[in-house]
Amino acid sequence: PLAAYAADHPNLVISAADVDAMQGAIKQPGRFRNAFLATQSAVDRALQAPLAIPMPADAGGGYTHEQHKKNYQLMYNAGVLYQITQDPKYAERVRDMLLAYAELYPTLPLHPKRRPGANNPGKLFWQSLNEAVWLVYTIQAYDLILPSLTDAEAKKIEQGAIRPVARFLSIDSPKTFNKVHNHGTWLTAGVGMAGYVLDEPEWVEQALLDLDKSGKGGFLRQLSTLFSPDGYYNEGPYYQRYALMPFVTFAKAIENNEPERGIFEYRDGIVMKAIDTTIQLSYDNLFFPINDAIKSKGIDTSELVLGVTIAYGQSGDPQLLDIAAKQDQILLSGDGLKVANALDAGQEQPYTFKSFAFRDGKDGDEGALVVLRQQTDGDQALVFKPAAQGMGHGHFDKLTWQFYDRGEEIVTDYGAARFLNVEAKNGGRYLAENESWAKQTVAHNTVVVDETSHFDNNLKVANQNHPDLLFFHADDQVKISAAEINSAYPGVRLKRTLALVNSPENGKTFAIDVFDVASSQEHQLDLPLHYNGQLVDTSFRLQGFTDNLKALGTNNGYQHLWLKARGKPESGLAQVTWLNDNGRFYTQSSLMDGATELLFTELGANDPNFNLRSEKGFIARRDGVSSHTFVSVLEPHGQYNPSKEFTLEAESQVNALDHQRVGDLELITIGTKDGATQLLAYHRSKGIAADTRHTFKFGDSEYSFTGRAKLFQFNN
Amino acid sequence: PLAAYAADHPNLVISAADVDAMQGAIKQPGRFRNAFLATQSAVDRALQAPLAIPMPADAGGGYTHEQHKKNYQLMYNAGVLYQITQDPKYAERVRDMLLAYAELYPTLPLHPKRRPGANNPGKLFWQSLNEAVWLVYTIQAYDLILPSLTDAEAKKIEQGAIRPVARFLSIDSPKTFNKVHNHGTWLTAGVGMAGYVLDEPEWVEQALLDLDKSGKGGFLRQLSTLFSPDGYYNEGPYYQRYALMPFVTFAKAIENNEPERGIFEYRDGIVMKAIDTTIQLSYDNLFFPINDAIKSKGIDTSELVLGVTIAYGQSGDPQLLDIAAKQDQILLSGDGLKVANALDAGQEQPYTFKSFAFRDGKDGDEGALVVLRQQTDGDQALVFKPAAQGMGHGHFDKLTWQFYDRGEEIVTDYGAARFLNVEAKNGGRYLAENESWAKQTVAHNTVVVDETSHFDNNLKVANQNHPDLLFFHADDQVKISAAEINSAYPGVRLKRTLALVNSPENGKTFAIDVFDVASSQEHQLDLPLHYNGQLVDTSFRLQGFTDNLKALGTNNGYQHLWLKARGKPESGLAQVTWLNDNGRFYTQSSLMDGATELLFTELGANDPNFNLRSEKGFIARRDGVSSHTFVSVLEPHGQYNPSKEFTLEAESQVNALDHQRVGDLELITIGTKDGATQLLAYHRSKGIAADTRHTFKFGDSEYSFTGRAKLFQFNN
Ligand SMILES: [Zn+2]
Ligand SMILES: [Zn+2]
Repeated sequence: PLAAYAADHPNLVISAADVDAMQGAIKQPGRFRNAFLATQSAVDRALQAPLAIPMPADAGGGYTHEQHKKNYQLMYNAGVLYQITQDPKYAERVRDMLLAYAELYPTLPLHPKRRPGANNPGKLFWQSLNEAVWLVYTIQAYDLILPSLTDAEAKKIEQGAIRPVARFLSIDSPKTFNKVHNHGTWLTAGVGMAGYVLDEPEWVEQALLDLDKSGKGGFLRQLSTLFSPDGYYNEGPYYQRYALMPFVTFAKAIENNEPERGIFEYRDGIVMKAIDTTIQLSYDNLFFPINDAIKSKGIDTSELVLGVTIAYGQSGDPQLLDIAAKQDQILLSGDGLKVANALDAGQEQPYTFKSFAFRDGKDGDEGALVVLRQQTDGDQALVFKPAAQGMGHGHFDKLTWQFYDRGEEIVTDYGAARFLNVEAKNGGRYLAENESWAKQTVAHNTVVVDETSHFDNNLKVANQNHPDLLFFHADDQVKISAAEINSAYPGVRLKRTLALVNSPENGKTFAIDVFDVASSQEHQLDLPLHYNGQLVDTSFRLQGFTDNLKALGTNNGYQHLWLKARGKPESGLAQVTWLNDNGRFYTQSSLMDGATELLFTELGANDPNFNLRSEKGFIARRDGVSSHTFVSVLEPHGQYNPSKEFTLEAESQVNALDHQRVGDLELITIGTKDGATQLLAYHRSKGIAADTRHTFKFGDSEYSFTGRAKLFQFNN
Repeated sequence: PLAAYAADHPNLVISAADVDAMQGAIKQPGRFRNAFLATQSAVDRALQAPLAIPMPADAGGGYTHEQHKKNYQLMYNAGVLYQITQDPKYAERVRDMLLAYAELYPTLPLHPKRRPGANNPGKLFWQSLNEAVWLVYTIQAYDLILPSLTDAEAKKIEQGAIRPVARFLSIDSPKTFNKVHNHGTWLTAGVGMAGYVLDEPEWVEQALLDLDKSGKGGFLRQLSTLFSPDGYYNEGPYYQRYALMPFVTFAKAIENNEPERGIFEYRDGIVMKAIDTTIQLSYDNLFFPINDAIKSKGIDTSELVLGVTIAYGQSGDPQLLDIAAKQDQILLSGDGLKVANALDAGQEQPYTFKSFAFRDGKDGDEGALVVLRQQTDGDQALVFKPAAQGMGHGHFDKLTWQFYDRGEEIVTDYGAARFLNVEAKNGGRYLAENESWAKQTVAHNTVVVDETSHFDNNLKVANQNHPDLLFFHADDQVKISAAEINSAYPGVRLKRTLALVNSPENGKTFAIDVFDVASSQEHQLDLPLHYNGQLVDTSFRLQGFTDNLKALGTNNGYQHLWLKARGKPESGLAQVTWLNDNGRFYTQSSLMDGATELLFTELGANDPNFNLRSEKGFIARRDGVSSHTFVSVLEPHGQYNPSKEFTLEAESQVNALDHQRVGDLELITIGTKDGATQLLAYHRSKGIAADTRHTFKFGDSEYSFTGRAKLFQFNN
């Protein structure tokens, strides 16, 4: 077979020049050689098992499914080792497997476990997504061993396996192939890469531009649509890292074969942005667990290892090496070698996590996922989510937030209710409690109206609506953002402003929350705060349900909450303090109107199978109002060190909180026991010019500032 | 002042020869120099504050209490720095403080916050214990700066401060000074060390032998009585590490002044044993949290840093360096220098944690704290507690156990209910829930009869009784121990055998538990198991209390347990599986009689102040029996790795469990799904000879073994 695109094989993710470099590198001590030896030893062990190309029978998780997965992973690794070592045993195993697939594939009907009526069946696998993943790996393996094959062998493999699979995934699966969706990306990546190897430019064109080459579907459209202009994927970071894989793989193959396409420059460098945004959406190596997310997933995931490796190959950005060092996995590729060499030479520089509003939606106008960060008193991150729903894995959590401090999640998001692959837990799939709890609004830190979730849990409506980002601003002392949504509940406007501030004078940090609810009718408004730690103190009397617990409600997640205690603080300041495992105290101080109740809850009611974690929260409840503003400030303080036997500042320093509206300005004042007062002033309107000057009177004096917001400090 | 004991000052923990060595060491790079620079910078900062010797007013935690504590710590550190640097500023600050104390002390009445009627008041502090700690530090500081003082200064300090304090703590506090108790150790250490420095051999004699030199009290009697022959301190490791401090300090001072006393050889080397046992009673750097213990306390505690440092100075044992490396704190002393140099030279060897029965009681015949360990499949430790009560901080937990695996506590002990120094939590003292929950029998993993705690919570009776250790045995495959107690409940014998085994054939590990209860009357028997993790599955049907929880009982700790679900498994095998945060599954398989219920609980009822952690457990309950044997096996298995997206062996491999008595032998068989059967055979009687041969019939064959126990494996 002759390739028009490239004179040499391989030339997908790994090029012939990469191979030369890798052959040299494994003779030198270092990270690359270590990775090579580890892979070689694993593959050598795997080669001792006989070939197993079973007749497809099982769905995901079953034997035949897992065996075909193992096969493509082994073929890929053996192909790489063949190129590096030129040892024929590696090529021979790949060849034998491919020949066996070439025998098997033409005989296969649609998979017996395909979902009835679904338009995405596979043949080797129960769905075409897995078949496409098989092709993405297998075409690379084929490309890697092609030089070792006779023409007859190559012809048989292409005719019996590669071409039929590519055809099945394209012409025979037009809906999935053309779909502007992550599944489509896998199909187009597999078929397009096969086009490069088999010298079928038409396949590449179809992969890039839709089967009819209209540009309505295909890889370029996916790149234009599935990520926002800021590289945000609207299912959130957990699925973003998964979605990355075919994008970066195919992009790298395009770059190697047709550099003139400038794929990495496409749409202002969207591939690189998507990789970087995935990193940005993490704290302490773990992804923000918004939407359906398993909380232990982090930046060392294999998809992001590939992403960072390829991105470093493109940009040579030494900050990416900081991430690569944390991932601690070197890939056997040309880019992997670059990463290994740079790490061996100690070239990494600290990666900069930034405060940023990652706009959502293909045009960047469907809300945003906002991250506010500061490092003045420990590493803090505030995640604010006026993002779009994000399809089926999205949660009904408009305007929710989370807070991280000193390595721990302090104000929490439950993530997904799932024990991945644990058979006893609903077969390892999402649990029923993912719907009944994790997706519900009350499971989040945002307002619930009348004990009903946003959009009344209607996914279709949710997908059609999104919050509007009103503003985002970040300077040294103040990071602040606001957003609103009118569609979560009929006739109700929800508007939230969150700020992360630090005082240069006394070093204190605060997260400030102003949540406005406005409606023409009276409602019950609940604002939950899910916290991580042990309750230490409340500034008001609690009535505990100490020997009999009942569920807080009957539906929309409320049925899963035990009501443990309630209190109705007097008008003024109400404080709740807890102690996190990081040894720090956190106090939430709220402005109370005397009519708002605080309900203390623990998760776990109506959970007969013990599927839920016992997490804690408290809910500010204001009933019978048409509009209300919840104002609170979260304050990290002190230290609990029982090991060294000292405890510092276990009590909140906040002793006053006030909120005023003066014209278009909002003024939040926080008084502390040291006699200082922090005043956060901000302009509430959308789109004010950065050089606009605002003046306001406070007490007996006049103050002014320019732009969005400013933190003032007074000392008594 | 002239010293008869030593020609040179200093000569307590630090000798003049040590000073020479330290002066040389700080000129070389390394751990010692780093520690010196860190201390110097901290002391230099502290010296910028003016002297503060306030009139005593506050109890523990209050300002004057904390200031006098800071003073003695600063005097000690400044004294050390004076010796090392010869910089007079350090000596001058110590001198000035001591002169101020010499002015103040003679004017002081008993402390205003002393406990009314208690016989242990202080003057500087609310209790004489703190006054003794002040003297232990201060006499060392004085010894360190003595060479810098004029005779007049020395005289004034001795007359105004040292002598009055020493007198107050000895002749004026005879009850506490003579008491064979940890408080007495501080007093004798302080007074004895003052005797060395002030050349008062009579004080030393009294410190060693009681005020009347009868040997009925004093340091030697304390060494003979407060530790068991195995160096176990009967309040448990949390208090043992605290108790160590005056023992090792005074012992080192005795060794430096009167090596002919052979204090480190006294009672077969009890000081060294006490240090080593403190280390042994830890897992993953944290102490076993038996009795009143704060769970985050571990081997890096300052008391054990001193202990390990002095022990290394005595023995030069390179395994102690392994612990010193984990402690990562170098002391500025001669022994500290030895540790630093050895660590700089990389001389540490892995510390050996051993399986051992640490006998309790001064003569070693009051039960034991038993530790079974194995490293065949991760680092495992089983703690079995047939120990004596251990006075006021002891828990009513006879024969309880804990299990650790792969870095985590799997079968748990609550430890103490306390938030140390957190004012909002009962002033930082032990919480009411320490009595109502943490000390109660149901808070532990041992049998509760008729919902009443051991000894009916009567501490006096508890202190007068103890379990008997029947046997302890450890070989490569089997670690096993048994103990019994007849006094925890009137007319009831509790006997428990715990074994930790590993199969050489299939690599599985099991913790096996056989708990016999025998009585002439019918009782309700509860055997709780407190576990750490998320419930994954039960092999039997659970009836959940899903929308209404009630407390399980009204007293003896039961009032704090929510009853979340109950089940009555059929006769045969009942299995409960949970998943720990270490990513491993744990299944407890119990032999059921069809009449035993399993009650699933969560801690937190009747806890209006949210003082308790929400821990999980299940209780095997058998009602209306006069005798019963609980048999169960705990099996670690599989791996849950959601980050890498794989789950291995989430299901128990155990599918059969049997228990037979054949003559004096007990036979436990565990069948696993791979077709193997593990048979643990052991002889139940006390004191059998190691070479006794036992023969038994099992199935159709005859088997035999020698000694205490053997693990057999059959394959079907
Ligand atoms: Zn969520
Ligand atoms: Zn206990």
